Amino acid sequence: QIINLLPSFFLPQVLANKNITITAGPTREAIDPVRYISNHSSGKMGYALAQAAQWLGAKVNLISGPTSLETPGGITKISISDAEQMLQAAQEYTQNCDIFISCAAVADYKMKQVAPQKMKKTSDELTLELERNPDILASIASLAQKPFCVGFAAETQNLAHYAKDKMQRKNLDMIIANDVSNQAIGFNSNDNAVTVFWPKGSVEIEQTDKQNLAIHLLQLIAAQYEEK
Amino acid sequence: QIINLLPSFFLPQVLANKNITITAGPTREAIDPVRYISNHSSGKMGYALAQAAQWLGAKVNLISGPTSLETPGGITKISISDAEQMLQAAQEYTQNCDIFISCAAVADYKMKQVAPQKMKKTSDELTLELERNPDILASIASLAQKPFCVGFAAETQNLAHYAKDKMQRKNLDMIIANDVSNQAIGFNSNDNAVTVFWPKGSVEIEQTDKQNLAIHLLQLIAAQYEEK
Repeated sequence: QIINLLPSFFLPQVLANKNITITAGPTREAIDPVRYISNHSSGKMGYALAQAAQWLGAKVNLISGPTSLETPGGITKISISDAEQMLQAAQEYTQNCDIFISCAAVADYKMKQVAPQKMKKTSDELTLELERNPDILASIASLAQKPFCVGFAAETQNLAHYAKDKMQRKNLDMIIANDVSNQAIGFNSNDNAVTVFWPKGSVEIEQTDKQNLAIHLLQLIAAQYEEK
Repeated sequence: QIINLLPSFFLPQVLANKNITITAGPTREAIDPVRYISNHSSGKMGYALAQAAQWLGAKVNLISGPTSLETPGGITKISISDAEQMLQAAQEYTQNCDIFISCAAVADYKMKQVAPQKMKKTSDELTLELERNPDILASIASLAQKPFCVGFAAETQNLAHYAKDKMQRKNLDMIIANDVSNQAIGFNSNDNAVTVFWPKGSVEIEQTDKQNLAIHLLQLIAAQYEEK
């Protein structure tokens, strides 16, 4: 705990007295009581952001899907499983919140109907009918009293194009884009490299470990938050 | 390592010189480069069986899907992700094998076609076309030189009926049935309670921790293996 708080003494407290809510990890969408749809998010980037925000002086609420990561000390963690649960938690914890960072890899689709019993594998083929999950980030960013909203864009092609389009479409204040087709900086990697876009600018951050990157990102977020 | 081997001094070495191959954990079936279908198996039961088999004197190969568990010392672990990879490993490691225990929660279905790029969420609805995965246990149990084959049946209803039907249909020597609708003994629990069926008998084992249960199960398996 002492070692954990040490960086706070060396880092300028640019987020002092700020409430920050961060989502992290994957969500799991039930198919039936035993099966689910998920994705390869490890949660590492979101947890690193939560730790960095705390080091920079913020009060942090971390809304997390299932991961095997330990929660940094002093951070309030809200554990959820699926996207609907994450949406409810996000709506609750952004009510008195300055900055909202949506880092979770929320499942885009869920089952139209979850089977109440384990489905028997009677047929050679199976068709799963899915429908869109609620867009948690867009929902928070459309509030009248919206916090400063930061999104992520994980892309395998045309990164800048898709990222800037997503920022405008969802009314975001900043978007952090990374290329998940690059295995060296992918979902389970300890490293990441990103390009950050905001309405009036952008900056590229070269490959570095996620904890170091998280500090840089939150310093950028703090600066843009103050300018707004 | 010393503590880990201690039970070997107290337990009769009923599996000395036996080669045992065990599958454990879930499999993950890719939807696209970031999304997959999986299930809630923690791998705990399979890993407990691997540890117990080693304590009882066996040489153990553990074919495991993605879990967050540590591999017990002295056990050969083969890490795989999807059912096709698990089938290949099972075929290889059961070639000179006395007993095969299929404890993995293999995904029953996989995508007909895995998308090479991350699918864009352009539509409000999505239909996933799935097809049956190979039946790993039935495939090993149908070999001319088949090992003693043990399966699991995770059911939410009509446990005995489905379990015995599965044993006959797949040509198994033993089946271990548990009720996954009971949360106290479910996929992520440390405890389990099972009913074991073999062609000429059955026995019920009351709720106990998975490591203790694993020792009982392997003593049962050793006894039935010797009778055959």
